[in-house]
Amino acid sequence: MRVVLLGSGNVATHLAQAFIAADMQVVQVWSYTLENANALAEKVGAAALADLDLIDRDADLYVISVKDDAIASVAGQLKGLDGLVVHTSGATDLAILQDIVHSGVLYPLQTFSKTQALDFSKVPLCLESADDGDYLKLDNIAKQLSTAVFKISSAERKVLHVAAVFVCNFPNYLYQVGQELVAEHDLSFDLLRPLILETALKVQHANPAAVQTGPAVRGDEKTMQRHMGLLTNHPVWQDIYESVSKNIKNTHI
Amino acid sequence: MRVVLLGSGNVATHLAQAFIAADMQVVQVWSYTLENANALAEKVGAAALADLDLIDRDADLYVISVKDDAIASVAGQLKGLDGLVVHTSGATDLAILQDIVHSGVLYPLQTFSKTQALDFSKVPLCLESADDGDYLKLDNIAKQLSTAVFKISSAERKVLHVAAVFVCNFPNYLYQVGQELVAEHDLSFDLLRPLILETALKVQHANPAAVQTGPAVRGDEKTMQRHMGLLTNHPVWQDIYESVSKNIKNTHI
Repeated sequence: MRVVLLGSGNVATHLAQAFIAADMQVVQVWSYTLENANALAEKVGAAALADLDLIDRDADLYVISVKDDAIASVAGQLKGLDGLVVHTSGATDLAILQDIVHSGVLYPLQTFSKTQALDFSKVPLCLESADDGDYLKLDNIAKQLSTAVFKISSAERKVLHVAAVFVCNFPNYLYQVGQELVAEHDLSFDLLRPLILETALKVQHANPAAVQTGPAVRGDEKTMQRHMGLLTNHPVWQDIYESVSKNIKNTHI
Repeated sequence: MRVVLLGSGNVATHLAQAFIAADMQVVQVWSYTLENANALAEKVGAAALADLDLIDRDADLYVISVKDDAIASVAGQLKGLDGLVVHTSGATDLAILQDIVHSGVLYPLQTFSKTQALDFSKVPLCLESADDGDYLKLDNIAKQLSTAVFKISSAERKVLHVAAVFVCNFPNYLYQVGQELVAEHDLSFDLLRPLILETALKVQHANPAAVQTGPAVRGDEKTMQRHMGLLTNHPVWQDIYESVSKNIKNTHI
């Protein structure tokens, strides 16, 4: 299995390492800037390039892992290839690859940082293809990378993308509020870190609604009023406190 | 070290097991109902009681771990003891124990469920006492239970209690929104669980603001508009999406 990676960001970096771990060969890494291509290519023993004309046209798999806005222009230069061409975007329709002979989507539903190691074998991979043969090929590849492979349509993938914002980006913002709150009083964020981790661990087997705790779900108005009082210097955080507490109460009536 | 536990809820249950693990003796478990006292007492080889008059008056440590509203009435019956009396509440002032000879606070900053096992040695324990000798005694006990022991005043503890709502109760509500969103489309919550865990793992060593991802921090208005469109049937979730996204943008300018 010979793979060409188009992109050198967080997703491309983790995917490249997953391909290598599955004994596949990453032959080329392309990026707009040769420096970025080089950084990733060196890690996985691939050739680096910044010119799409130099792309290996005999690879089995081409993975487009660039910013959503750039997928169409990269795909435009991959027409006529025999290999399977996939993008990795959660928010982009499969149809963006309609001029490609063999196309699909390989969306890893996870938050990636280049510097943070991660067990790729547990990353949910969301697959789509309009062609049964191409889907089978993609499914076979994906199952060598992860044990969590799902067939997901473009419409479903968009829902997952919004849901990911709610369970990842927004909680991270709330972690930030907590961090700033304790920092204001010269307290260490280490006081909150175990709680953050345990909250995420709890829902690995339970449903969130079943393990909700805190003053809002208890209907403990006295504590909520005291908390609002402590936030008087932060009207923005008061707004969040009030609206989320109200929602928690409403869903648990 | 002989300990009497007043309460049999989630916190009392985990504390009891931590005392046993540290080779301390839990001699009695009191609860309003004998049945609840029994359930916990049996686990740790203690006597169960529902009558505060029967309490062992020669123990070294009395831990009041009842609902905030009930602390005062329980404390009222513990006057004149020689042992150290502590409560475990995040939202309650030390002064509620002012009529006790030796008093303090032992607040474990964590979310506990009776059924979920947990490594107590990593739970942040927030200690307070008005008396240096009592503090030293409490500090010595706490360090046998956990490696994360902090000296925290009543005012600081109240800040931590609000912060805990932001980093635990509110993220859990957002997990619920994610779960309901995918359930509406017959998708499994397992698709989101690894993302939830990784988001919490990322801030165990980094600061949340430094690892924020998603459309809001990128200023990706097109994606945010699409997401808002997908949420039209859920005005409450749209409100959250809009306000939290705005806050993320504002804090990253």
